[in-house]
Amino acid sequence: MDRGRLEAFSDGVFAVAITLLALDLAVPEPGHGHLITQLGDHWASFAAFVVSFLTIGIIWVNHHTLFKNIAHIDRALLFLNLLLLFFVVSIPFVTSTIADYLQHGGPDASVAAAIYEGVFLWMGLSFGVLFWWSITREHLKEALPPGAVWSPIIRFGIGNIGYLTAVGVAFLSPGAALLISGLLAVYYMFEQTPGRGGSVGRDAGAARDAGTGQEPGAGRDSGRGEDF
Amino acid sequence: MDRGRLEAFSDGVFAVAITLLALDLAVPEPGHGHLITQLGDHWASFAAFVVSFLTIGIIWVNHHTLFKNIAHIDRALLFLNLLLLFFVVSIPFVTSTIADYLQHGGPDASVAAAIYEGVFLWMGLSFGVLFWWSITREHLKEALPPGAVWSPIIRFGIGNIGYLTAVGVAFLSPGAALLISGLLAVYYMFEQTPGRGGSVGRDAGAARDAGTGQEPGAGRDSGRGEDF
Amino acid sequence: MDRGRLEAFSDGVFAVAITLLALDLAVPEPGHGHLITQLGDHWASFAAFVVSFLTIGIIWVNHHTLFKNIAHIDRALLFLNLLLLFFVVSIPFVTSTIADYLQHGGPDASVAAAIYEGVFLWMGLSFGVLFWWSITREHLKEALPPGAVWSPIIRFGIGNIGYLTAVGVAFLSPGAALLISGLLAVYYMFEQTPGRGGSVGRDAGAARDAGTGQEPGAGRDSGRGEDF
Amino acid sequence: MDRGRLEAFSDGVFAVAITLLALDLAVPEPGHGHLITQLGDHWASFAAFVVSFLTIGIIWVNHHTLFKNIAHIDRALLFLNLLLLFFVVSIPFVTSTIADYLQHGGPDASVAAAIYEGVFLWMGLSFGVLFWWSITREHLKEALPPGAVWSPIIRFGIGNIGYLTAVGVAFLSPGAALLISGLLAVYYMFEQTPGRGGSVGRDAGAARDAGTGQEPGAGRDSGRGEDF
Repeated sequence: MDRGRLEAFSDGVFAVAITLLALDLAVPEPGHGHLITQLGDHWASFAAFVVSFLTIGIIWVNHHTLFKNIAHIDRALLFLNLLLLFFVVSIPFVTSTIADYLQHGGPDASVAAAIYEGVFLWMGLSFGVLFWWSITREHLKEALPPGAVWSPIIRFGIGNIGYLTAVGVAFLSPGAALLISGLLAVYYMFEQTPGRGGSVGRDAGAARDAGTGQEPGAGRDSGRGEDF
Repeated sequence: MDRGRLEAFSDGVFAVAITLLALDLAVPEPGHGHLITQLGDHWASFAAFVVSFLTIGIIWVNHHTLFKNIAHIDRALLFLNLLLLFFVVSIPFVTSTIADYLQHGGPDASVAAAIYEGVFLWMGLSFGVLFWWSITREHLKEALPPGAVWSPIIRFGIGNIGYLTAVGVAFLSPGAALLISGLLAVYYMFEQTPGRGGSVGRDAGAARDAGTGQEPGAGRDSGRGEDF
Repeated sequence: MDRGRLEAFSDGVFAVAITLLALDLAVPEPGHGHLITQLGDHWASFAAFVVSFLTIGIIWVNHHTLFKNIAHIDRALLFLNLLLLFFVVSIPFVTSTIADYLQHGGPDASVAAAIYEGVFLWMGLSFGVLFWWSITREHLKEALPPGAVWSPIIRFGIGNIGYLTAVGVAFLSPGAALLISGLLAVYYMFEQTPGRGGSVGRDAGAARDAGTGQEPGAGRDSGRGEDF
Repeated sequence: MDRGRLEAFSDGVFAVAITLLALDLAVPEPGHGHLITQLGDHWASFAAFVVSFLTIGIIWVNHHTLFKNIAHIDRALLFLNLLLLFFVVSIPFVTSTIADYLQHGGPDASVAAAIYEGVFLWMGLSFGVLFWWSITREHLKEALPPGAVWSPIIRFGIGNIGYLTAVGVAFLSPGAALLISGLLAVYYMFEQTPGRGGSVGRDAGAARDAGTGQEPGAGRDSGRGEDF
């Protein structure tokens, strides 16, 4: 099983899921009050849309970074990837649910927020298993140095503890839970899965400092395999 | 006709179909009872979503495994592939129908379940024809050893007999029919179409035992053609 | 502008459009009569779904066959391709409209059928312009022999005359118009755009007769450029 | 981070967004008046569909032209690209909103049009930032000659000033605002982002004049990296 088609299928699922998010933004047709008022009433839809968009976007970035460094894909990895996609595919549904219930408040808003954060938590956990499988089963192109394994696991764990906290907070304040997952999305923008991709940020910085159009790692990346 | 674009188009259809499944999970807006109660009332939607997601996921895995070993794609194979995609595209519709009718019970639940299992049966049969065409028309990169042809046909046939049974069981118990297709999905997770891909599981195991990041078949797979 | 990404974007549009077709198949929820009766009442939805699925599938096959032989893509070709995709994207809408109105009959069924066939006609015409542009502007990898140009134009024109006829027939019998476009889809399954792809059917036949796993044209197809 | 998968994901989002536009074209089921009358009543839906289709199509063309000339993709570029996709994904929603409200007129039509043009403006601005980042951070394969940098920035700026004007005009005449964005789409069909792609139009013209199937730039484009 090669990597290219797994990525193509996954990219398709990510792209459809992220675009379907916007289907829930629909406001009622004319005749239900001023448009501005309606848009204001749907603030939860827009907030949830932004958080879900960012979260899917970031999981896509990390998915790519992880698979870039995977040389061999076995059948178990395919099904672990399907497990991750299962939660990605569920995001438009839970986004729509939290958007509907958050603005009405009450205990159902807490349930909706807990389910929403729960899907993010499961997505994070399945990504963690995918990551753990790929480093322990010797599927990486370049083995990570021993120290480099624990650091990302710890940083990754912080994200999942964040989602777990958000599930709990949902019962106190569903809006605060949504806010936590928004902050976690920002956190993940700066943190990332390791593997060779783990050095992209640093390489880019180096390239910038050096003021050349040629990044330090360009030689390694010029092989055909890396181009996809 | 080359293989890459057939795979890209098929991957797109698989990805859209698997993501559209989740559109049917929508619960009513607030004001129709407790959210938890509503989610419970929609248990059939979630069960059907899981079974359909797994089934499309697995047919994608097997589709890839089959096409990996196909060297030449003729016009007939293109249309056999379109036939398979026709049933894949129908899955969100029959999933939505069984979800709506299963929880209401009665004879219509049986009809919905029979149609649902029927689409899976036709999908399995069209996949079988695709497989049969590719091995008998000499399109494979590596001819299968004589014994290797019958074994997968028998195992594949078991799956289709399972779907045929489920169509019949639907009239006795639609829930049991759904359960059968769920079990068949698990069955297919461990069984697979042969071709070179047929040895992936074993290769991976060997690679694991050998404790190297380099799989035994890596040499064969390093050619450009295999990377997609 | 290179060919790969134009194909990837077009494949995405084809895949989404063909999968969205099935969204219109939804039957009402329980409580609106027997499921079998409802499915029967929606016969027009299923007929239109089959015809539209086949038509999009075939235009995808021909799109691929045409672009396989195109070496250079200029900006005009990009926009001619967008024009074709405009009509592809419109197909789910006109399919839904003909499905709704055909089963109710009356003059509106004729209007819906004329619009449906009209979109197919425009799709055929824009494909024709795309084809004409690519052969007259010297974009082909292999120039067609003089005789080979007229033959496909004539055969292609037959299809468009068929759609034009269907637009007219729609006002006499909308069902007959739908039938005509179904027959045209079958016609296009056996006819195809020329270019190098034009010989695929024959090659495959030859390969079959020769009883080898190696098709005659395999040597030509083994270059990197052809693999996508 | 390599270019291929960023393009694949972006192409998926563009393809889904452009195809979802047509979902808003749905007319009511039979029994709500003549079909022709209803289609006429939905003129705003069709006008907005055409403008949005063209705009997404053109932004896709320019996206491709820009990335073709980018050699190195850093994490910041990934997130700038996500920002652009955020506005692309929002287009079906704002298209649906302007379509619903434009035909009912009144102040809400102005609000809907201002939001519609506003999303186009933000999309244009985020594309501008993407472009600015890629030329200033030395990510281009071929540095632009000094003069070539300002010319596209000026021409690009004209487009954004056009969208800004449309936002203002929306409050005077929402229909005129829609017309402006339609004209801007036509404007962008003839203008384009620079980079190597910037010479495609001219090359093609030269190839046409020279009457050869070989474009002048073909040699440069024949490397593997350019094929995608």
